[in-house]
Amino acid sequence: MSRIALATLTHGMEFVARTASDHEVRMDAAEKVGGEDKAARPAEMPFVGLAGCTGMDAISILRKMRQEVATFAVAAEGLERTTEHPKRWTAVRVIFEVTGDVDPAKLEKAINLSRNRYCGVSASLRPAVRIEYRYVLNGSVTDLGEAEPEVERE
Amino acid sequence: MSRIALATLTHGMEFVARTASDHEVRMDAAEKVGGEDKAARPAEMPFVGLAGCTGMDAISILRKMRQEVATFAVAAEGLERTTEHPKRWTAVRVIFEVTGDVDPAKLEKAINLSRNRYCGVSASLRPAVRIEYRYVLNGSVTDLGEAEPEVERE
Repeated sequence: MSRIALATLTHGMEFVARTASDHEVRMDAAEKVGGEDKAARPAEMPFVGLAGCTGMDAISILRKMRQEVATFAVAAEGLERTTEHPKRWTAVRVIFEVTGDVDPAKLEKAINLSRNRYCGVSASLRPAVRIEYRYVLNGSVTDLGEAEPEVERE
Repeated sequence: MSRIALATLTHGMEFVARTASDHEVRMDAAEKVGGEDKAARPAEMPFVGLAGCTGMDAISILRKMRQEVATFAVAAEGLERTTEHPKRWTAVRVIFEVTGDVDPAKLEKAINLSRNRYCGVSASLRPAVRIEYRYVLNGSVTDLGEAEPEVERE
Protein backbone atom coordinates (compact mmCIF):
# COMPACT_ATOMS: atom_id res chain seq x y z
CA MET A 1 0.00 0.00 0.00
CA SER A 2 1.38 3.39 -0.88
CA ARG A 3 0.02 6.87 -1.34
CA ILE A 4 0.12 7.90 -5.01
CA ALA A 5 -1.26 11.40 -4.53
CA LEU A 6 -2.96 13.63 -1.96
CA ALA A 7 -5.01 16.46 -3.44
CA THR A 8 -5.86 19.19 -0.94
CA LEU A 9 -8.56 21.82 -1.51
CA THR A 10 -7.06 25.29 -1.14
CA HIS A 11 -10.05 27.54 -1.96
CA GLY A 12 -12.86 27.69 -4.52
CA MET A 13 -12.31 24.59 -6.67
CA GLU A 14 -8.52 24.61 -6.61
CA PHE A 15 -6.75 21.46 -5.46
CA VAL A 16 -3.02 21.09 -5.01
CA ALA A 17 -1.86 17.50 -5.27
CA ARG A 18 1.34 16.26 -3.68
CA THR A 19 2.51 13.09 -5.45
CA ALA A 20 4.43 10.06 -4.25
CA SER A 21 7.47 11.41 -6.11
CA ASP A 22 7.11 14.51 -3.88
CA HIS A 23 6.07 17.08 -6.47
CA GLU A 24 3.08 19.39 -6.66
CA VAL A 25 0.42 19.34 -9.37
CA ARG A 26 -2.19 22.07 -9.29
CA MET A 27 -5.75 21.69 -10.64
CA ASP A 28 -8.59 24.14 -11.00
CA ALA A 29 -12.05 24.26 -12.57
CA ALA A 30 -13.42 26.66 -15.17
CA GLU A 31 -15.08 29.83 -13.94
CA LYS A 32 -18.54 28.69 -15.05
CA VAL A 33 -18.42 25.82 -12.53
CA GLY A 34 -17.05 27.85 -9.62
CA GLY A 35 -13.32 27.72 -10.31
CA GLU A 36 -10.84 30.45 -11.24
CA ASP A 37 -9.19 28.71 -14.22
CA LYS A 38 -5.77 28.95 -12.58
CA ALA A 39 -4.55 25.45 -13.46
CA ALA A 40 -5.32 22.43 -15.62
CA ARG A 41 -8.52 20.39 -15.26
CA PRO A 42 -8.53 16.98 -13.52
CA ALA A 43 -10.05 15.39 -16.64
CA GLU A 44 -7.00 16.49 -18.66
CA MET A 45 -4.56 14.74 -16.33
CA PRO A 46 -4.91 11.14 -17.57
CA PHE A 47 -4.10 12.34 -21.09
CA VAL A 48 -1.22 14.51 -19.92
CA GLY A 49 0.07 11.34 -18.26
CA LEU A 50 -0.58 9.28 -21.38
CA ALA A 51 1.43 11.70 -23.55
CA GLY A 52 4.25 11.89 -21.01
CA CYS A 53 4.40 8.15 -20.39
CA THR A 54 4.52 7.07 -24.01
CA GLY A 55 6.79 10.02 -24.83
CA MET A 56 9.36 9.04 -22.19
CA ASP A 57 9.28 5.42 -23.35
CA ALA A 58 9.77 6.32 -26.99
CA ILE A 59 12.51 8.95 -26.57
CA SER A 60 14.41 6.62 -24.29
CA ILE A 61 14.26 3.80 -26.87
CA LEU A 62 15.18 6.16 -29.75
CA ARG A 63 18.26 7.31 -27.84
CA LYS A 64 19.32 3.70 -27.26
CA MET A 65 18.91 3.21 -31.03
CA ARG A 66 21.23 6.23 -31.54
CA GLN A 67 18.68 8.21 -33.49
CA GLU A 68 19.35 11.93 -33.73
CA VAL A 69 16.15 13.50 -32.54
CA ALA A 70 15.99 17.29 -32.99
CA THR A 71 12.51 18.00 -31.58
CA PHE A 72 10.07 15.62 -29.93
CA ALA A 73 6.51 16.17 -28.73
CA VAL A 74 3.49 13.96 -28.07
CA ALA A 75 -0.08 15.18 -28.46
CA ALA A 76 -3.26 13.57 -27.17
CA GLU A 77 -6.17 14.47 -29.39
CA GLY A 78 -9.76 13.73 -28.42
CA LEU A 79 -11.75 11.87 -31.11
CA GLU A 80 -14.99 10.85 -29.39
CA ARG A 81 -16.63 11.74 -26.12
CA THR A 82 -19.84 10.92 -24.29
CA THR A 83 -22.61 13.48 -24.11
CA GLU A 84 -24.09 11.92 -20.94
CA HIS A 85 -22.55 11.72 -17.46
CA PRO A 86 -19.96 10.63 -16.64
CA LYS A 87 -18.61 12.86 -19.41
CA ARG A 88 -15.36 11.55 -20.76
CA TRP A 89 -13.28 10.80 -23.85
CA THR A 90 -13.98 7.33 -25.27
CA ALA A 91 -11.50 7.61 -28.16
CA VAL A 92 -8.26 9.55 -28.47
CA ARG A 93 -5.33 9.69 -30.87
CA VAL A 94 -1.75 9.88 -29.64
CA ILE A 95 0.40 11.79 -32.12
CA PHE A 96 4.21 11.71 -32.01
CA GLU A 97 5.62 14.86 -33.59
CA VAL A 98 9.28 14.27 -34.33
CA THR A 99 11.96 16.04 -36.33
CA GLY A 100 15.58 15.03 -36.88
CA ASP A 101 17.68 12.34 -38.47
CA VAL A 102 15.39 9.49 -37.47
CA ASP A 103 14.70 6.20 -39.28
CA PRO A 104 10.90 5.86 -39.59
CA ALA A 105 11.10 2.09 -38.95
CA LYS A 106 12.95 2.73 -35.69
CA LEU A 107 10.48 5.40 -34.61
CA GLU A 108 7.64 2.99 -35.34
CA LYS A 109 9.35 0.26 -33.32
CA ALA A 110 9.86 2.62 -30.37
CA ILE A 111 6.19 3.64 -30.46
CA ASN A 112 5.04 0.02 -30.70
CA LEU A 113 7.20 -1.03 -27.75
CA SER A 114 5.64 1.70 -25.66
CA ARG A 115 2.04 1.11 -26.65
CA ASN A 116 2.10 -2.68 -26.52
CA ARG A 117 4.53 -3.29 -23.69
CA TYR A 118 5.81 -0.46 -21.52
CA CYS A 119 3.32 2.34 -21.04
CA GLY A 120 1.27 1.69 -17.92
CA VAL A 121 -0.97 4.71 -18.47
CA SER A 122 -2.20 3.52 -21.86
CA ALA A 123 -2.77 0.03 -20.42
CA SER A 124 -4.84 1.58 -17.62
CA LEU A 125 -6.97 3.67 -19.98
CA ARG A 126 -7.30 1.26 -22.89
CA PRO A 127 -10.30 -0.81 -21.78
CA ALA A 128 -12.39 2.40 -21.52
CA VAL A 129 -10.72 4.55 -24.15
CA ARG A 130 -9.86 3.54 -27.71
CA ILE A 131 -6.34 4.79 -28.36
CA GLU A 132 -5.11 5.29 -31.93
CA TYR A 133 -1.52 6.15 -32.81
CA ARG A 134 0.02 8.42 -35.43
CA TYR A 135 3.44 9.85 -36.02
CA VAL A 136 4.52 12.89 -37.94
CA LEU A 137 8.22 12.60 -38.83
CA ASN A 138 9.72 15.72 -40.43
CA GLY A 139 6.22 16.67 -41.56
CA SER A 140 5.25 13.29 -43.05
CA VAL A 141 2.19 11.62 -41.47
CA THR A 142 1.87 7.86 -40.76
CA ASP A 143 -1.12 6.29 -39.04
CA LEU A 144 -0.52 3.19 -36.93
CA GLY A 145 -4.16 2.68 -35.95
CA GLU A 146 -5.19 1.18 -32.66
CA ALA A 147 -2.92 -0.93 -30.47
CA GLU A 148 -4.05 -4.42 -29.53
CA PRO A 149 -6.21 -4.12 -26.42
CA GLU A 150 -4.33 -7.02 -24.88
CA VAL A 151 -4.19 -5.69 -21.34
CA GLU A 152 -7.32 -6.16 -19.26
CA ARG A 153 -8.07 -5.77 -15.59
CA GLU A 154 -6.39 -8.53 -13.64
CA MET B 1 -11.69 16.46 -32.63
CA SER B 2 -9.79 18.58 -30.16
CA ARG B 3 -6.33 18.64 -28.69
CA ILE B 4 -6.42 17.62 -25.02
CA ALA B 5 -2.70 18.03 -24.36
CA LEU B 6 0.61 18.54 -26.14
CA ALA B 7 3.64 17.35 -24.18
CA THR B 8 6.94 18.73 -25.50
CA LEU B 9 10.33 17.29 -24.59
CA THR B 10 12.54 20.04 -23.14
CA HIS B 11 15.71 18.10 -22.24
CA GLY B 12 16.64 14.80 -20.57
CA MET B 13 13.29 13.18 -19.81
CA GLU B 14 11.39 16.34 -18.93
CA PHE B 15 8.17 17.05 -20.80
CA VAL B 16 6.08 20.17 -20.45
CA ALA B 17 2.46 19.62 -21.39
CA ARG B 18 0.18 22.43 -22.54
CA THR B 19 -3.45 21.44 -21.96
CA ALA B 20 -6.65 22.32 -23.79
CA SER B 21 -7.52 24.63 -20.86
CA ASP B 22 -4.23 26.44 -21.67
CA HIS B 23 -2.20 25.53 -18.60
CA GLU B 24 1.18 23.88 -18.22
CA VAL B 25 1.83 20.57 -16.49
CA ARG B 26 5.44 19.51 -16.08
CA MET B 27 6.61 15.87 -15.90
CA ASP B 28 9.99 14.33 -15.27
CA ALA B 29 11.47 10.88 -14.68
CA ALA B 30 13.52 9.64 -11.74
CA GLU B 31 17.28 9.99 -11.95
CA LYS B 32 17.82 6.22 -12.25
CA VAL B 33 16.00 6.24 -15.61
CA GLY B 34 17.68 9.34 -17.03
CA GLY B 35 15.51 12.10 -15.57
CA GLU B 36 16.30 14.83 -13.05
CA ASP B 37 13.30 14.32 -10.73
CA LYS B 38 12.16 17.91 -11.26
CA ALA B 39 8.43 17.19 -11.60
CA ALA B 40 5.80 14.50 -11.10
CA ARG B 41 5.82 11.21 -13.01
CA PRO B 42 3.43 10.57 -15.94
CA ALA B 43 2.14 7.42 -14.17
CA GLU B 44 1.01 9.56 -11.22
CA MET B 45 -1.12 11.84 -13.41
CA PRO B 46 -4.22 9.63 -13.84
CA PHE B 47 -4.48 9.35 -10.05
CA VAL B 48 -3.87 13.07 -9.51
CA GLY B 49 -6.75 13.57 -11.94
CA LEU B 50 -8.87 10.96 -10.18
CA ALA B 51 -8.41 12.68 -6.80
CA GLY B 52 -9.08 16.13 -8.29
CA CYS B 53 -12.09 15.03 -10.32
CA THR B 54 -13.92 13.24 -7.53
CA GLY B 55 -12.84 15.94 -5.06
CA MET B 56 -14.31 18.76 -7.17
CA ASP B 57 -17.55 16.81 -7.64
CA ALA B 58 -17.92 16.09 -3.93
CA ILE B 59 -17.03 19.56 -2.59
CA SER B 60 -19.38 21.14 -5.09
CA ILE B 61 -22.27 18.86 -3.98
CA LEU B 62 -21.47 19.39 -0.27
CA ARG B 63 -21.62 23.16 -0.74
CA LYS B 64 -25.00 22.86 -2.46
CA MET B 65 -26.12 20.81 0.57
CA ARG B 66 -24.93 23.70 2.79
CA GLN B 67 -22.46 21.56 4.70
CA GLU B 68 -19.76 23.47 6.59
CA VAL B 69 -16.55 21.92 5.39
CA ALA B 70 -13.45 23.08 7.29
CA THR B 71 -10.76 21.05 5.48
CA PHE B 72 -11.08 18.78 2.47
CA ALA B 73 -8.54 16.53 0.78
CA VAL B 74 -8.68 13.45 -1.41
CA ALA B 75 -5.95 10.81 -1.43
CA ALA B 76 -5.35 8.07 -3.97
CA GLU B 77 -3.67 5.11 -2.36
CA GLY B 78 -2.22 2.24 -4.38
CA LEU B 79 -3.38 -1.21 -3.24
CA GLU B 80 -2.16 -3.60 -5.95
CA ARG B 81 0.18 -3.29 -8.88
CA THR B 82 1.56 -5.51 -11.59
CA THR B 83 5.14 -6.73 -11.40
CA GLU B 84 5.37 -7.28 -15.16
CA HIS B 85 5.25 -4.69 -17.93
CA PRO B 86 3.21 -2.64 -18.47
CA LYS B 87 3.73 -1.76 -14.80
CA ARG B 88 0.66 -0.13 -13.36
CA TRP B 89 -1.76 0.05 -10.44
CA THR B 90 -4.61 -2.46 -10.76
CA ALA B 91 -6.34 -1.49 -7.51
CA VAL B 92 -6.46 1.83 -5.67
CA ARG B 93 -8.40 3.34 -2.79
CA VAL B 94 -9.76 6.87 -2.93
CA ILE B 95 -9.88 8.40 0.54
CA PHE B 96 -11.84 11.56 1.32
CA GLU B 97 -10.33 13.32 4.33
CA VAL B 98 -12.86 15.83 5.63
CA THR B 99 -13.24 17.93 8.76
CA GLY B 100 -16.04 20.30 9.71
CA ASP B 101 -19.72 20.32 10.53
CA VAL B 102 -20.67 17.73 7.93
CA ASP B 103 -23.48 15.15 8.04
CA PRO B 104 -21.92 11.72 7.25
CA ALA B 105 -24.98 10.69 5.22
CA LYS B 106 -24.61 13.80 3.06
CA LEU B 107 -20.89 13.22 2.58
CA GLU B 108 -21.62 9.64 1.57
CA LYS B 109 -24.26 10.81 -0.90
CA ALA B 110 -21.85 13.35 -2.42
CA ILE B 111 -19.17 10.67 -2.82
CA ASN B 112 -21.63 8.22 -4.36
CA LEU B 113 -22.90 10.80 -6.86
CA SER B 114 -19.33 11.39 -7.98
CA ARG B 115 -18.22 7.79 -8.21
CA ASN B 116 -21.36 6.41 -9.85
CA ARG B 117 -22.42 9.33 -11.99
CA TYR B 118 -20.22 12.38 -12.46
CA CYS B 119 -16.52 11.60 -12.36
CA GLY B 120 -15.26 10.92 -15.86
CA VAL B 121 -11.76 10.03 -14.69
CA SER B 122 -12.92 7.18 -12.47
CA ALA B 123 -15.18 5.92 -15.29
CA SER B 124 -12.17 5.95 -17.65
CA LEU B 125 -9.94 4.04 -15.23
CA ARG B 126 -12.44 1.65 -13.72
CA PRO B 127 -12.37 -1.18 -16.27
CA ALA B 128 -8.61 -1.55 -15.69
CA VAL B 129 -8.30 -0.40 -12.10
CA ARG B 130 -10.42 -1.54 -9.16
CA ILE B 131 -11.34 1.61 -7.22
CA GLU B 132 -12.41 1.38 -3.58
CA TYR B 133 -13.73 4.33 -1.59
CA ARG B 134 -13.27 5.43 2.01
CA TYR B 135 -13.96 8.59 3.92
CA VAL B 136 -12.45 9.89 7.10
CA LEU B 137 -14.78 12.46 8.68
CA ASN B 138 -13.35 14.27 11.70
CA GLY B 139 -11.06 11.28 12.26
CA SER B 140 -13.71 8.57 11.95
CA VAL B 141 -13.17 6.03 9.15
CA THR B 142 -15.95 4.58 6.92
CA ASP B 143 -15.31 2.20 4.04
CA LEU B 144 -17.68 2.33 1.08
CA GLY B 145 -16.03 -0.49 -0.86
CA GLU B 146 -15.96 -0.59 -4.63
CA ALA B 147 -18.35 1.35 -6.87
CA GLU B 148 -20.45 -0.56 -9.36
CA PRO B 149 -18.37 -0.96 -12.53
CA GLU B 150 -21.38 0.13 -14.57
CA VAL B 151 -19.51 2.17 -17.13
CA GLU B 152 -17.80 0.26 -19.88
CA ARG B 153 -16.19 1.26 -23.12
CA GLU B 154 -18.86 2.36 -25.56
